[in-house]
Amino acid sequence: MALPSFHLRLALLLLLAVCASAVHPRKLTRFGGVRRFTTSEPSYELPPEYEIHYYTQTVDHFNYKPDSYATFQHRYILNYKYWGGANSSSPIFVYTGEETDVTYDVETFILDLAARFKGLLLYIEHRYYGESMPFGSEDQAFQNACTLGYLSSEQALADYAQVIVDVKKNLSAENCPAVAVGASYGGMLASWFRIKYPHIVIGALASSSPILYFDDITPQNGYHVVVTKDFRGTRESCYNTIKQSWSEIDRIAAEPNGLMTLSNKFNTCSPLNTSQELKDYLEIMYVSAAQYDNPPYYPVERTCRGIDGAPEGTDILGRIVAGLKSRFRGWDSCHDIFTFELSNKSAWDWQTCTQIVMPIGYGYNETMFEAEPFDINNYTKDCLDVFGIVPRPHWMTTEFGGHDIKTVLGNFASNIIFANGLRDPYSIGGVLEDISDSVVAVHTEHGAHCSDLHPPTPDDPDWLVAQRDKEIKIISAWIAEYYAKLATK
Amino acid sequence: MALPSFHLRLALLLLLAVCASAVHPRKLTRFGGVRRFTTSEPSYELPPEYEIHYYTQTVDHFNYKPDSYATFQHRYILNYKYWGGANSSSPIFVYTGEETDVTYDVETFILDLAARFKGLLLYIEHRYYGESMPFGSEDQAFQNACTLGYLSSEQALADYAQVIVDVKKNLSAENCPAVAVGASYGGMLASWFRIKYPHIVIGALASSSPILYFDDITPQNGYHVVVTKDFRGTRESCYNTIKQSWSEIDRIAAEPNGLMTLSNKFNTCSPLNTSQELKDYLEIMYVSAAQYDNPPYYPVERTCRGIDGAPEGTDILGRIVAGLKSRFRGWDSCHDIFTFELSNKSAWDWQTCTQIVMPIGYGYNETMFEAEPFDINNYTKDCLDVFGIVPRPHWMTTEFGGHDIKTVLGNFASNIIFANGLRDPYSIGGVLEDISDSVVAVHTEHGAHCSDLHPPTPDDPDWLVAQRDKEIKIISAWIAEYYAKLATK
Repeated sequence: MALPSFHLRLALLLLLAVCASAVHPRKLTRFGGVRRFTTSEPSYELPPEYEIHYYTQTVDHFNYKPDSYATFQHRYILNYKYWGGANSSSPIFVYTGEETDVTYDVETFILDLAARFKGLLLYIEHRYYGESMPFGSEDQAFQNACTLGYLSSEQALADYAQVIVDVKKNLSAENCPAVAVGASYGGMLASWFRIKYPHIVIGALASSSPILYFDDITPQNGYHVVVTKDFRGTRESCYNTIKQSWSEIDRIAAEPNGLMTLSNKFNTCSPLNTSQELKDYLEIMYVSAAQYDNPPYYPVERTCRGIDGAPEGTDILGRIVAGLKSRFRGWDSCHDIFTFELSNKSAWDWQTCTQIVMPIGYGYNETMFEAEPFDINNYTKDCLDVFGIVPRPHWMTTEFGGHDIKTVLGNFASNIIFANGLRDPYSIGGVLEDISDSVVAVHTEHGAHCSDLHPPTPDDPDWLVAQRDKEIKIISAWIAEYYAKLATK
Repeated sequence: MALPSFHLRLALLLLLAVCASAVHPRKLTRFGGVRRFTTSEPSYELPPEYEIHYYTQTVDHFNYKPDSYATFQHRYILNYKYWGGANSSSPIFVYTGEETDVTYDVETFILDLAARFKGLLLYIEHRYYGESMPFGSEDQAFQNACTLGYLSSEQALADYAQVIVDVKKNLSAENCPAVAVGASYGGMLASWFRIKYPHIVIGALASSSPILYFDDITPQNGYHVVVTKDFRGTRESCYNTIKQSWSEIDRIAAEPNGLMTLSNKFNTCSPLNTSQELKDYLEIMYVSAAQYDNPPYYPVERTCRGIDGAPEGTDILGRIVAGLKSRFRGWDSCHDIFTFELSNKSAWDWQTCTQIVMPIGYGYNETMFEAEPFDINNYTKDCLDVFGIVPRPHWMTTEFGGHDIKTVLGNFASNIIFANGLRDPYSIGGVLEDISDSVVAVHTEHGAHCSDLHPPTPDDPDWLVAQRDKEIKIISAWIAEYYAKLATK
């Protein structure tokens, strides 16, 4: 298994660490907010109002080769608890599943939407995740590029179309307006679904979906520039300490027994093999803090409080450790320095190696990190090594657009909310400006990745309450407009 | 090779007989207006201003199997004659090729659009037609369902996207607005392209594209009801004669040597094997007359003039023969009674056997024809026999919509002209009502299949001139709106 270049691992991490991580804390790693799903994790045991169903799904919607006709059992979940029923044409909220087991994602803000609008809840799993495995099993599905080859966003969107049409038909709910809701990659899917399948959903709430982080639309360093801004905006001294720490790590590593010194300092369970391991790990810590800088935990503030609050005279790396200790409980016992490796058993890795090519990279002195330019050649080589296939780095903008989005969608499309929290480094690749009256950007200065989709709590800050209220109001207008048209038929 | 049921053969005929048939009369069969392309017909030799190009096209845009990465040489044509150039952001008119060699279709009304708007002409061939053959050659491409399997409308649309993006890039023409123009099936593609790829074309002129003739959106008998109306509206007596002719054919066929009597009466080059052959042939004659009831020839009027103008006392079949003689020159020499057979060497037959399933059929006494209900089971059986695959008869509405189109596209999409001539029986499956201010229906009472796209002539009737003027005016507004937005960037 190859070790991919860091930018790639980072992209893997970031989208893997989906919004829902805040929803079921039991699924979090001890590092809070960052987790790595492997497809073999068991499904979450759902409360009884969630009904598991399976649709016999076509493996290939766009070709008609004999093997295109193969089918698999595609999992989706229904929850009727709030539904007003087909007779009243009550809405259907469709969760467009992202890169994870769909059972992990049921208890988000979508429940509140359903409760508010008497909606049916329909959660659709993304193919090749959870139980929705073509070719009968995960082992079969992940055998090689031939079996993985049907894993693409276009196929997933077509899956959603098929399931929604089928569910509506089964429930005689053809007149019920469906609204797509998705988070992170699932939010990208939700917005693309509205754009490509407007006959199936009347609108989409796309939370933290960086649909513009393809090709050259968003500056490559945007992600890390925002991370840097988050830290620097919290405390200049915190930012300075982090910025200085990289060369300090190198300096110590170069000393006799330097790696051991670093291992002891950072209390690693096993000795470091390279200083890069440590640097990669720390970068992951910072970017994940920024991406998931959500209330009530606010990991950036917590990290900086530790860094800046260390006793006077503490050296740079001592402050870095103090930052980690401040952020994470349980730091006193040893811990693993993890890195992400591209794996031929990871469906998300496959997706980043085929079409979800986000060119994230940054030069010298552009951020608080050491330079790590994006290099499509290395990226391609890694993918070739692990999967035997080469990415199509420009396909997403050809298929889904993105360039000049305001002109393109200004008089086209309707009913999409692009929700973002500006502390989320992915927000830089999101839609942050209204495109038209009904393709709108709803973002908050204080929010992070998918803040709005977290299940509301009584302690939520006002800006978050206001963001969700705004989304509810917009969705309410879509549904009202739909009913008004329905009444005239 | 199986003989498919008639409705299927009919569907094959009707879309095969594309608009362009009027453009290069030398390509027409002797029956004028109806022709059957085989893929092996040679390309039309184009005037020198048409440059032939080839794009290295991906065979499978939506999957990432190793064989998805195969490529083929995809033919397209450029004509710069009228183009104002990239510096002036002059437009690009993209002909979305339909089920034929793209060289047959260059000289349509699109030339006038290019001349009017200083447009670049870009004609893109549909994969598996003409020279655009995956797997290196027609023989290879048509080997079996595995090689034909990549022939689908979605792949064709993605092909168009790739070619347009590439052409724009090569010409530094990224700011040049592209407008899709298509005819019949190509018109369906043009409208779908605008709906699915709004970032690539700013609008679409879809001529005679029955995008609503799928599933249960349009009444199955609609096509033949319009044919009947065309004839009955011309002369009630003509309609009556045709309606009575079917049982008369059966009556004579049942007599001793009846088939020989019929063969002689209709002057067939070889003796009829069944009376059904003759009936099928006559049906094709009537529906083609209606579909292509264009000026200056007006085959319906001409047929009816023959039928009604036969000397008094002429019997029913004598009148039918008189109708054919009136319509076609050269009737005095013998002629072939042709029928259409589903062929595993026909790309269009493949398309009708996979996704382009138009449920055309009609019951007893609903039209001037004998009953021929649509039967999906027979249809499926025929496709299975010939290609070894089964159709997906509901897929098109899931992928492209169609149900309740006014509600769906009322606040979604923009800049589409659905042009129709109401004498065209396919118009019944077209969009005949404005959907919004900019998704509009432009139809004429007197027009037939793709009348508007025929190259203008000084003899064109006023209604046709007016229809084209209206289209020009609408497209002019699209381009003006685009330029206005461009100026503010």
